[in-house]
Amino acid sequence: MSDYKEMWTSLGLDQQTHDAVLDLVGKTYQEMFLSQKNRPKGMEYFDFVVSEIHGLRIRELLDAKAEGRKVIGTFCVFVPEEIVLALNAVCVGLCAGAELGFEAAEEYIPRNTCSLIKSAFGFKLAKVCPYIEATDLIVGENTCDGKKKAFESYGDLVGNLYVMDLPQTKSEAGKALLKAEYLKFAAKLEELTGVELTVENLKKGIETVNNKRKAMHRLAELRAANPVPISGLDVLLANQVYFYDNPERFTASINAICDELEQRIANGEGVFPKDAPRILLSGCPMAVPNWKVPGVIENSGAIMVGEEMCTGERGFRNLTDDGANTVDELLDKIVDRYFEIDCAVFTPNKKRYDHIKEMVKKYKADGVLHYSIQFCQPYQIEAMSVEKNLEKEGIPVLSVDTDYSQEDMGQLKTRVEAFIERIKS
Amino acid sequence: MSDYKEMWTSLGLDQQTHDAVLDLVGKTYQEMFLSQKNRPKGMEYFDFVVSEIHGLRIRELLDAKAEGRKVIGTFCVFVPEEIVLALNAVCVGLCAGAELGFEAAEEYIPRNTCSLIKSAFGFKLAKVCPYIEATDLIVGENTCDGKKKAFESYGDLVGNLYVMDLPQTKSEAGKALLKAEYLKFAAKLEELTGVELTVENLKKGIETVNNKRKAMHRLAELRAANPVPISGLDVLLANQVYFYDNPERFTASINAICDELEQRIANGEGVFPKDAPRILLSGCPMAVPNWKVPGVIENSGAIMVGEEMCTGERGFRNLTDDGANTVDELLDKIVDRYFEIDCAVFTPNKKRYDHIKEMVKKYKADGVLHYSIQFCQPYQIEAMSVEKNLEKEGIPVLSVDTDYSQEDMGQLKTRVEAFIERIKS
Ligand code: SF4
Ligand code: SF4
Ligand code: SF4
Ligand code: SF4
Repeated sequence: MSDYKEMWTSLGLDQQTHDAVLDLVGKTYQEMFLSQKNRPKGMEYFDFVVSEIHGLRIRELLDAKAEGRKVIGTFCVFVPEEIVLALNAVCVGLCAGAELGFEAAEEYIPRNTCSLIKSAFGFKLAKVCPYIEATDLIVGENTCDGKKKAFESYGDLVGNLYVMDLPQTKSEAGKALLKAEYLKFAAKLEELTGVELTVENLKKGIETVNNKRKAMHRLAELRAANPVPISGLDVLLANQVYFYDNPERFTASINAICDELEQRIANGEGVFPKDAPRILLSGCPMAVPNWKVPGVIENSGAIMVGEEMCTGERGFRNLTDDGANTVDELLDKIVDRYFEIDCAVFTPNKKRYDHIKEMVKKYKADGVLHYSIQFCQPYQIEAMSVEKNLEKEGIPVLSVDTDYSQEDMGQLKTRVEAFIERIKS
Repeated sequence: MSDYKEMWTSLGLDQQTHDAVLDLVGKTYQEMFLSQKNRPKGMEYFDFVVSEIHGLRIRELLDAKAEGRKVIGTFCVFVPEEIVLALNAVCVGLCAGAELGFEAAEEYIPRNTCSLIKSAFGFKLAKVCPYIEATDLIVGENTCDGKKKAFESYGDLVGNLYVMDLPQTKSEAGKALLKAEYLKFAAKLEELTGVELTVENLKKGIETVNNKRKAMHRLAELRAANPVPISGLDVLLANQVYFYDNPERFTASINAICDELEQRIANGEGVFPKDAPRILLSGCPMAVPNWKVPGVIENSGAIMVGEEMCTGERGFRNLTDDGANTVDELLDKIVDRYFEIDCAVFTPNKKRYDHIKEMVKKYKADGVLHYSIQFCQPYQIEAMSVEKNLEKEGIPVLSVDTDYSQEDMGQLKTRVEAFIERIKS
């Protein structure tokens, strides 16, 4: 621990605020995760990861840097991790899930900016995120208005921002734009890393990421069981760690948990009683330690059986086909894979409704809780169509709009409890 | 008037609500415009236009339709009017500036959607806009998240929506996308109108629109005089009427006003006393009857000397070069012209800061009032950079965030008055 202090100081963190953040994460984790009953033993790995969230993993990143590898920070599942890994770089998600430094952030972005964006500024300004400080390059993207415009001043703050343009439609022109941007990104990374893309390293990168995804598919499917062998909170945590852990170790840990869960299912064992109300969560991503809505759901006696969000199935669902024999063809496969992501920044985005319905069926959900981060217009607007579309087919939907504060906890609880009553009957 | 009633009924308007809207516009116009002192006589034309806002002009549109011409409704200055006119169609802006039908609108779009978008839904749902009902095609565009996503359900409501994709960056790829979209739009209109684009009709369309713009340039420049010969409210009105009036008649009327203003300047005559504080307005567009902020400014003793907004110089500043001899080359010129528009939905958009400073200098403004419609993230975020950028160079900026309601009038007045005190000293 004293070792880490030195490391944190060398990264320029603010010691006092950083200590407070670690305390908060630790305390919240204790309350929300460690207090759960019947947890799979394999979750101990994630307990360890969280306890070392700013420790061991940062040390690993710094060791990698010492070996000449580069660290790439990201804010969106549109950044192709395959390319990052192929070029021997490390990929880390930078999204933050706590209300910290918001006042300072509001010097740069308006009050009515979503909490996800605000915390990106807040964590930088409050000097509490060792991941940001460990990056060699941070990748922004033109997705929502909030991020697109906020990255303009975020770039001044961090000094190592690269912005990727993204299409707004799923047209041929949109796909061509994505390809062009991935080519530019690859060139940028080749320059940064001094490594060149080859069929071999690209296939290896694809394999590593696909393995991570396959492990998550396996985990997802086990949640169809009744009783459900693992809590939604625990799976959400895995989805969050997905973005910054060592990929091979992560994959192995998830697979170990899956082995355990298969055993549980065979024994008819679950974390919640059989026939507990089942909720599919859908909407905006949730970054560590944003466990607010999932906590309310699972503390009200319902269980989350799936997450249709970027920290969830929207992030890991599609595999990248590696059936090609030139770098350019492999890049096309990568483009094909990412172009399927049904983020609300696209218009139209109707396939997302189908995917939600598919997930409801597959995981036998009794209802959908649509989660929008306050001021996130793409998901808030889409929420209204999702609700109409699903309710029309008899799928109950509760649409929740919230931020990182704890102010609306009472109201939230009441609404979620009423929704659980509704789906039980 | 009784004639019009029949016309309105035939367009499916709700008679009672529509009467109320016309009353409101009339009353507000009386209070804000007709009560002004020393107005140029030429403004009588616009008094007439406003008094006939849902009368004569709608009759003209219906007459045009009876002759087989098509009516195209728009929500953005990125829709190339040159192409619409070339194909013998009529272009009308559909943006609305009143808080009407907002409750009904909130069945389709979230409460935190900008008033401009909400009123587009509100006016349709309340059945009070004869322009919407007179259109053969309504053009939406992928600009801000609000419009991009709202157009998805707006399309279901109106039934004749065409959505144009737009780039998010001022790159070569962005320009190619704009060109491709203009080609698609032209093809769509050719199909709708049964007319084909030719060098001749396109040059004619360019000429008509350029003449309208040139008249506005002339008007704009006359406002550099001290005292200012015309109020900002009156010029804003002209900018608003710009979007739906008959273009030739509009151009002639503006030029007649300019003749009169030149005479006034020669006589040292103004609408406000010499040396009155001069404010440049900058930001989001203002649609009829959104005269709230300009009203507060000019009722507080300051005069508006320019509008850096789409209902203002951002809309009319650039001319389209007609120096080409094929349809495709002319379309390139059109693309060149529109690609210069410095809307906040682009990233980065730094040229806008330069343009604001240029306008401050040219029109001898003492300060800039940046106007954002509440929940408009692109302009709200950009406002913060505009403010920093200008204040750094000693240009006072007041950043105002407001909607179509009258609730914040007191606070607004206080802030504007304090700002005027600041720029006077
Ligand atoms: S929600 Fe959209 S913008 Fe956000 S991480 Fe996912 S894909 Fe990217
Ligand atoms: S939650 Fe919404 S507004 Fe926030 S970064 Fe994601 S897409 Fe943008
Ligand atoms: S502000 Fe932007 S989106 Fe709005 S009309 Fe102007 S160019 Fe179009
Ligand atoms: S004012 Fe802003 S949010 Fe509203 S339509 Fe225009 S760009 Fe979009």
